[in-house]
Amino acid sequence: MAPGAGDRAQSVVAFGGGHGLACSLQALRLLVDDLVIDDLTAVVTVADNGGSSGRLRGEFGVLPPGDLRMALAALCGDHQWGDTWARVLQHRFAGHGEMNGHVIGNLLIVGLWEQLGDPVAALDWVGRLLGTTGRVLPMALTPLDITAEVRGLNPTGTTRVRGQVQVASTPGEIVSIALEPEHPEPCPEALLAVREADWIVLGPGSWFTSVIPHLMVPALREALVSTDARVIVVLNLVDEAGETSGYGPADHLAALVEHAPDLRIDTVLADRATLGDDQPDLESAVASFGARLHVADIARDDGTPRHDAARLAAAYTDIIAGITTGS
Amino acid sequence: MAPGAGDRAQSVVAFGGGHGLACSLQALRLLVDDLVIDDLTAVVTVADNGGSSGRLRGEFGVLPPGDLRMALAALCGDHQWGDTWARVLQHRFAGHGEMNGHVIGNLLIVGLWEQLGDPVAALDWVGRLLGTTGRVLPMALTPLDITAEVRGLNPTGTTRVRGQVQVASTPGEIVSIALEPEHPEPCPEALLAVREADWIVLGPGSWFTSVIPHLMVPALREALVSTDARVIVVLNLVDEAGETSGYGPADHLAALVEHAPDLRIDTVLADRATLGDDQPDLESAVASFGARLHVADIARDDGTPRHDAARLAAAYTDIIAGITTGS
Repeated sequence: MAPGAGDRAQSVVAFGGGHGLACSLQALRLLVDDLVIDDLTAVVTVADNGGSSGRLRGEFGVLPPGDLRMALAALCGDHQWGDTWARVLQHRFAGHGEMNGHVIGNLLIVGLWEQLGDPVAALDWVGRLLGTTGRVLPMALTPLDITAEVRGLNPTGTTRVRGQVQVASTPGEIVSIALEPEHPEPCPEALLAVREADWIVLGPGSWFTSVIPHLMVPALREALVSTDARVIVVLNLVDEAGETSGYGPADHLAALVEHAPDLRIDTVLADRATLGDDQPDLESAVASFGARLHVADIARDDGTPRHDAARLAAAYTDIIAGITTGS
Repeated sequence: MAPGAGDRAQSVVAFGGGHGLACSLQALRLLVDDLVIDDLTAVVTVADNGGSSGRLRGEFGVLPPGDLRMALAALCGDHQWGDTWARVLQHRFAGHGEMNGHVIGNLLIVGLWEQLGDPVAALDWVGRLLGTTGRVLPMALTPLDITAEVRGLNPTGTTRVRGQVQVASTPGEIVSIALEPEHPEPCPEALLAVREADWIVLGPGSWFTSVIPHLMVPALREALVSTDARVIVVLNLVDEAGETSGYGPADHLAALVEHAPDLRIDTVLADRATLGDDQPDLESAVASFGARLHVADIARDDGTPRHDAARLAAAYTDIIAGITTGS
């Protein structure tokens, strides 16, 4: 439970959704290859209400499968079998008909759910198909909606915005988020993974719609604040139009802490180049929360504001194996 | 090439579509388990224009996947992995939305076709997923439509009916069928399988829409009439409302021969109980085509007019391993 520094392989649970989580998982998978990690679990948001996932959720009342599929594909083994199936599961139909925009893997997951009746067992079957390194779990067994209190949409007070798509694209300023229903059924396997973890990784990803929602599932928050695992928060490289417009790194961290004041953060990971002048600000915020700041080069070279999986893996290794590099 | 009688394992190519072919394949799979057959190939009609297949064909211009999926599931290995994936691939969505009636395996096959660009390689991937015994191939690489000259729909002459669904349900009497286009692109792997086969199995199945269409693909008919393989024709148990209303066993055989006069038939397999008084009629028809009649108990016990896979397997074994039983 209490993590050692490089003396034995560690267990890690990564939280998030969408592309941010997928990149984090690609990085963590490399740590499994390097024997730094021996047990990897992804816990994924289930509040999406847009696109293929939103349509399937509306039609069948199931968990939105898209972010789960993306996490599974990110953990897929690096061999022809897994690669091919991952490519097929990520395939999105074009065309002009009823299938337009649907993704094969989403349909397969929904079919497995209907056939097996057990959401976790079904995801494990997809994991076996892909030869994934690690396991993918939903953050709750109840399909969720994100609601946000948003400032700036009317002259006085706040407005409640409902739905992941709507919250992510609001032109207003998000004050806080909540979930509907407030007490979704937790995923027991996710709670167990958190209790047994050495490390928790939160982020990167859409802050209010993919990262913070995990802290709003009561049983999951309780597990996260009471676990002995060390918590790493991976900050986004930039703010996102809509949900975090104008947010600096310290603002991201503050928003997270406001939604879960009891969470003990061990390490905050930020990218050196994009941090720039914001570093002193972030350093004092990190210190005020009793955490330590780990600064590393984790962005891509190509100018896109996205994390580089190999560089992120190097930073994770430094943190988890306890090798300190200049911060 | 020339088949021996039980001295070595035989190669078999089974032709058809839908439930009839699926039952035949379930039977032939048992012969592989028993080492009577060492090489099994299914060649499947690609003229369906109804249901999930018809919708996908209309939307993407692909081969209709449904009968291919059903054949793959019939050849699926008898173990938890294959069984589970076969069940998932056969899963049909209910609900009231756009996915209603679509079958997971059809969607997966279309996705594989789009991703891999090679229809045969894609089917081989599904075969590997299911751990199938044997290979499933399309009868042509061009999506086809069945047309039929039908008598009785207007006072004089015949009417041309177009489409598998329309032909299968016509209230008139089918005089002949043809394909559109007349010269579809053949499947090279299917032609090769026919050339190298010891045995060909035609039927059971919807006679004008699943069995005879194979003989209307010019390159495939040429391969079938020139192969050294012995041809087994498996007759249906009863006539089918619509396409073969009022047809006796001899009429089925005559319709097949009319569409491919050069085809040399070795054995005609018919069910003892449902044959009944029709046996003398069928015997003389079979003799006139230079074939031999093999009569066996191959129907189910439950009163449904369907073949029993285990009994069909016993009959196939008798024929292929050269053990003659009373006919």
